[in-house]
Order: sequence, then structure tokens, then C-alpha cells
Amino acid sequence: MIDSQFAPPVERLVEYFQRLPGIGRKSAVRMAFFLLSMSKEDAEGFADAILKAKEKVFRCEVCQNLTDTPVCKVCGDLSRDRSTVCVVAEPSDVAAIERAKEYKGLYHVLHGVISPLEHTGPDEICIRELVTRVGQGEIKEVILATDPDTTGETTAVYISGLLKPLGVKVSRLAYGVPVGAHLEFADVVTLMRAIEGRREL
Amino acid sequence: MIDSQFAPPVERLVEYFQRLPGIGRKSAVRMAFFLLSMSKEDAEGFADAILKAKEKVFRCEVCQNLTDTPVCKVCGDLSRDRSTVCVVAEPSDVAAIERAKEYKGLYHVLHGVISPLEHTGPDEICIRELVTRVGQGEIKEVILATDPDTTGETTAVYISGLLKPLGVKVSRLAYGVPVGAHLEFADVVTLMRAIEGRREL
Repeated sequence: MIDSQFAPPVERLVEYFQRLPGIGRKSAVRMAFFLLSMSKEDAEGFADAILKAKEKVFRCEVCQNLTDTPVCKVCGDLSRDRSTVCVVAEPSDVAAIERAKEYKGLYHVLHGVISPLEHTGPDEICIRELVTRVGQGEIKEVILATDPDTTGETTAVYISGLLKPLGVKVSRLAYGVPVGAHLEFADVVTLMRAIEGRREL
Repeated sequence: MIDSQFAPPVERLVEYFQRLPGIGRKSAVRMAFFLLSMSKEDAEGFADAILKAKEKVFRCEVCQNLTDTPVCKVCGDLSRDRSTVCVVAEPSDVAAIERAKEYKGLYHVLHGVISPLEHTGPDEICIRELVTRVGQGEIKEVILATDPDTTGETTAVYISGLLKPLGVKVSRLAYGVPVGAHLEFADVVTLMRAIEGRREL
């Protein structure tokens, strides 16, 4: 083991930080030492925040997004358009779309995408819950907003195949050049899709 | 507040992650969601690792490095050269030097550097403990291994001024081009120092 000169409780903390996404050994060590330099109250608050988040946060019974109330804030907001559902892979995607303050419908969080390489099949993510929801008849349009990559695309195509027979409109996010980007740096596939999807002015 | 659509316990966890060094809002959100996707046991283990590290790790009474025993492993190792002390800013610096497996003396951890901009004066870091240690007479050489930047340099010069009157040899880490680097990318100050400090072959 590298760095075994750390005291065992420090080493254990480093190992936990290292499990976080995007954190390597060096950053984990920095974080562990930073934590040790925090006040006792702050460190206890951190530990408590982890426990409380894990204990009090669960999935919304309607849309599967994370919430601390039985039905999440979006699903509970009666001013929102209940006939449109935006399907995303992760709770953080809901946060991203909400930030844009443009979309007024509801969401459905899959908690993953279909990925044969990671052994995630359709049954491992919340597709069944989506089909049940759509089957209840209130939903008129489903916007598939999974990532524009291979697994996101596969998942969108798969869900689309399940929902279309239910007579619901199924759409996909528009592909194109990102706003504010330079054309010369856009990849060819994006450029091709942007031309395909051109709109009349 | 941005992203206030997160449930309060999630928001609180995000805020704690955001305090970690080098972690912005986006990474903190990713980490919080990752933690929520961990098993209950793992999340509890993480919280416990924080508490245990904070509770069981304190400063070595000799060198001020972090340890879970009254005297740390290095200070307790009687095979090490007790006449040489390497002074570093942080516990992670001890780990870095130990990794090189070259140095066989003891350490002294300052827990910071003198930095007027951050209102850290000589009394806020463990300089007094170092002077007391050197005053006990066993130490013959002190190697100042603070970072080769402005604050590290200032701290080294300040400590050197305190220790020299005690009749101890005071040295500083060698400056030069890093091994394995390309000369063309070295900054001019480093190159100048590398030439100044040239050694005969």
C-alpha cells in the first residue's frame, strides 16, 4: 500500500474520499487533511450531513427524483403542466434543466441508462415506473432527455419503442451546436446533426 | 441560492462537499448524488471515518505531525537519525518525503506558513515548538523544506534567523529543474536557480 505512513484513521478517511467520482489518491489525501484541519463542530456537521441525507432523502413516488417529502416539489406543484414528462438519467439532470427555467412540465428520473458494458439492463433502471405512469393516461408527451451519447441514445430508442404503442407523443432533445461555442471546434457528428435539424427563420 | 430545487438535506451535503479544497459547486453536486447512490452501510462508514479520524488523530507531541499514537511512527522509530530535522508546512509534505524513501531523519510539521495576506503570523504556526525542540540540544541540522514559493521562502528565512543563533546547522532544499522535466518548459527563475546551484561532476 502506498502512503501507509498515515495513521490508520487517516488512511481510512482517504480511502472513502477516493471513492468519490473524479477523486484520485492525491486529491483524497488533500481532502482528508483538510477535514482534519476543520473544527470539531464542522467535521461532526459533515458526518451528520452524510447520515441525514442518506436517511431522509428517498425517491419521489411519482417521478423517482430524490426528495425528502413523499412527493417531490416539482410533482407537487399544481401550476406545472402535468401532460408533459421529461425523462432524464439522473437527479442532477433535473437540476440542470430546472436551472434553465424554461421547462414547465414534470420529470421522470431513470437512475441510470441502459449500458450492456456496465451490465445495466432496462430492468435495472426506472423504465417500468415510467411505462406505468404513461399508462395512466394523463401524460400526452414524453421528452426523452438522456445524454446525447451511445448509452443515452440506446436508452431513448428503447423507451420510445415501449411508449409509442401507448399513443403518447415521444420527442427527443434537439441536437445542434451549443450556444456560445465556436463552430470550428464543433465535432463533425454535432455539425451534421445541426445541419440536419436546421430551422427556417 | 442556485439549485434550491434540491431537497434541504441534499443541499446541506452539497455545501459541505463544496468546502473541500478544489471542489466547486458542480463537483460537489456530483459527489452528493454519488453518496446518495452508495449503500446505507457505505454511507455510514464514510460518516464514521470522518468522526473517527477527527476523534482519534491528533498532533505528535514531538514533531506535530498527525498521528493516532502519542508519539508518531517516525519519532518513535529509534533507527532514524535523531540529529536531523526536516521542517515542512503540512503533514502531506511528510508523506511526500517519506515516499521518496531517502530521508532518514525526523520531521517537524509547522501546520502552515507565515502569510501576511492570510493573517498567519509566526505565532499561528508551530515555530515555537521547533525552537524549543532545537534548544534541547540533540538536533544538529535543520533542513527547511517549506515550498519554494513566496510564503514558504519567507517562513524559511524567518525560522533560519531564529535557529542560527542556537548554533545548529540550517539548510534549505535544493532548487533546480525537476527530474524528468523538459528544460524548455522550465520557468526562468527555476532555470536561474538551477544554474546558480550547479554542481561539479
